[in-house]
Amino acid sequence: MTTLKAVHTQDRRFPLKPGEGIDAVHSDPVYSYAVSSIRSDRGHCGTGLAFTLGAGNDLVCRAIDQLSEPLIGCEINELMSEWGRVSRTLADHPQLRWVGPHKGVIHLALASLTNGVFDLWAKDRGVPLWRLLLDLSPEQIVSLLDLGYLEEVLDEGEALALLRDEMEGRGEREEVLSAGYPGYDTSVGWFDYPDEAIIENAKRAVDRGFSAMKLKVGSKDPERDIHRTQLIRETVGEKVRLMVDANQQWTVPEALEICPRLAANDLFWIEEPTHPDDVLGHKAIAEAVAPVSIAAGEHIPNRIVFKNFMQAGAIQVVQVDATRVAGVSEFIAVSLLARKFGLKVIPHVGDMGLIHRHLVFFNHIALGHEKLFLEAIPHLDEHFVHPSHFRDGSYITPQEPGSGTDLKES
Amino acid sequence: MTTLKAVHTQDRRFPLKPGEGIDAVHSDPVYSYAVSSIRSDRGHCGTGLAFTLGAGNDLVCRAIDQLSEPLIGCEINELMSEWGRVSRTLADHPQLRWVGPHKGVIHLALASLTNGVFDLWAKDRGVPLWRLLLDLSPEQIVSLLDLGYLEEVLDEGEALALLRDEMEGRGEREEVLSAGYPGYDTSVGWFDYPDEAIIENAKRAVDRGFSAMKLKVGSKDPERDIHRTQLIRETVGEKVRLMVDANQQWTVPEALEICPRLAANDLFWIEEPTHPDDVLGHKAIAEAVAPVSIAAGEHIPNRIVFKNFMQAGAIQVVQVDATRVAGVSEFIAVSLLARKFGLKVIPHVGDMGLIHRHLVFFNHIALGHEKLFLEAIPHLDEHFVHPSHFRDGSYITPQEPGSGTDLKES
Repeated sequence: MTTLKAVHTQDRRFPLKPGEGIDAVHSDPVYSYAVSSIRSDRGHCGTGLAFTLGAGNDLVCRAIDQLSEPLIGCEINELMSEWGRVSRTLADHPQLRWVGPHKGVIHLALASLTNGVFDLWAKDRGVPLWRLLLDLSPEQIVSLLDLGYLEEVLDEGEALALLRDEMEGRGEREEVLSAGYPGYDTSVGWFDYPDEAIIENAKRAVDRGFSAMKLKVGSKDPERDIHRTQLIRETVGEKVRLMVDANQQWTVPEALEICPRLAANDLFWIEEPTHPDDVLGHKAIAEAVAPVSIAAGEHIPNRIVFKNFMQAGAIQVVQVDATRVAGVSEFIAVSLLARKFGLKVIPHVGDMGLIHRHLVFFNHIALGHEKLFLEAIPHLDEHFVHPSHFRDGSYITPQEPGSGTDLKES
Repeated sequence: MTTLKAVHTQDRRFPLKPGEGIDAVHSDPVYSYAVSSIRSDRGHCGTGLAFTLGAGNDLVCRAIDQLSEPLIGCEINELMSEWGRVSRTLADHPQLRWVGPHKGVIHLALASLTNGVFDLWAKDRGVPLWRLLLDLSPEQIVSLLDLGYLEEVLDEGEALALLRDEMEGRGEREEVLSAGYPGYDTSVGWFDYPDEAIIENAKRAVDRGFSAMKLKVGSKDPERDIHRTQLIRETVGEKVRLMVDANQQWTVPEALEICPRLAANDLFWIEEPTHPDDVLGHKAIAEAVAPVSIAAGEHIPNRIVFKNFMQAGAIQVVQVDATRVAGVSEFIAVSLLARKFGLKVIPHVGDMGLIHRHLVFFNHIALGHEKLFLEAIPHLDEHFVHPSHFRDGSYITPQEPGSGTDLKES
């Protein structure tokens, strides 16, 4: 018996070094966490994160305060035996739901709270989150999920069947646990970095063993984007996978103009070419750049919008982020959905890859998702108790209990 | 010269009488406003509203505090000569944008703030909002709008052309100002009202001159929904327009099952049959119930999502709400978009119809939208300084300066 005693929130903000984190739209980022700290009566503390860029982080903290009340006094194993139902009840608070629903501040709060509960659950069992998730039966996994509003494409029966089918190849796929999960370097070419810096960063990324990297584009001058893309391609050669990220900067007509030109540089994906709500805009752009993939997800708020993106053929790479959707639970729901549609899941990592290390292991081993690579961002390493470690460009499998998201005391 | 001196917020909440406001999803509504009070140096105070159901209203107020700062010290006419650009800058705050973007708490804050600025502008000129808007040139109207991310369906040139084209029929359409704008009664059949109450309410609505009314559906038992719909149809006869509203309660398969059965009762529309983010779900349902219309909008957060709904043929009645999207400005942008697609605009009225009285006059006279009817909800009349007045089921044209949203002191 382990009971949730209290939920506290912390508004933690971490200014970056000049140039870090800057993209075409976010010119002044302060990487920040709305932190849920969930204490149990056995002395463990679960840490849950939602990621923001500074202002507004306080709003998420206050929303957590309002959402968390029904969890106090619950026994953790009972709670997790029906988290899907609990999650739905929290998301459908009869009053708070109005200021979403299932998006924005209120859904970020649910992300943080959910991740805190999962972290506490794993710490209470004394195992890393990936271990805990892999030890659950298909039935237990499905009961963690709210699959509501997905029925016409993925109901509980089908989710269960998918999980059962994948039991077979698990042994082989578990090799990833000793090899580690490949990363890709997302800090090569922030938006304001000069040419010399991105050349140097790209070389260093290759030296560190990364076989994939990303460049920020979305300049008002398309020639700058094309120049920088070519520059990295020339620097790293043909074997490295290269992605570009416009952070929603283009209108649909602009994207239709520039994306095919960028795609000619053998890109692995073009990320967020236009507004993240524009399913049909993404669909038009995806058709224009095929076979190059369109990636999106860091601003897709929930499984229902992901469903529409997948149904429309608007994305090929699903960048679901557990610190944006309703935490680990909705992350898994979206990953199942992507499996159904035969799409890649390569998360955006608002958590700097900490929770997502666990989740890509789970996705590969339990859901049969292809082993690809996970975004790597080092800028906040010094602030975490257990930052990610890399060997030859791969995330080393975390062994500490929980999801590894504990922050050092402020 | 009139300068904005200060923005204050108020968290105003108004409990309802038992049964009022309850629908299939919102079981405990407390009609609430996140109020922006914007003082000018000439002593006027603009009042802007965003509507919520209680909890979370405080979050919107705090977001207004954070968004409003750049407006202080601005001259009102200068500000309104380029409100489209200003609105975009506010919506794209480089940090706050992350906790949206353009949705949820942060966008509700922009709604309230925008409505407050428009109210102040009209009060400063000493005219009702509808008069102010009708006196603007097509160029001035377009400069009030952020049409970003709509380019492939409606750019500034096309918006301007549409407004100019409609100048011609204006004189005739201005007759609506003396006749008043028809209302429809939305309080006939809240979700928990017993049969006797909905029969009595429907009769009373007809007696008061309403020619259209709405019933809440979305029961777990479809037979209850069908029974209640038939009951009202039998009570009011064939001449009254009848709408039903499921408030997002059904999954897509459930909606595909029940909507055609409900539609058989000569419905004018079926509202929010499923989750408000599900564009393709609505499209499937719309195809199944055609020629009966699908209506949605109270939870569609911005013009980009509306664009997708319209492009997909997923809605036929656009229920855009100026207290949900970015205020009067984005309301007009969405109304222009609907005109382009040939769709009806019949707003949801989080403001209890106060601002929207002005906006439907504008939509009919300046944009050439069909004169239909505007939702009428009387539950908060006692709290407003200038509540709506009706004659023969029509909203009487408001004459007081501003948008008429001032609340009595608490």
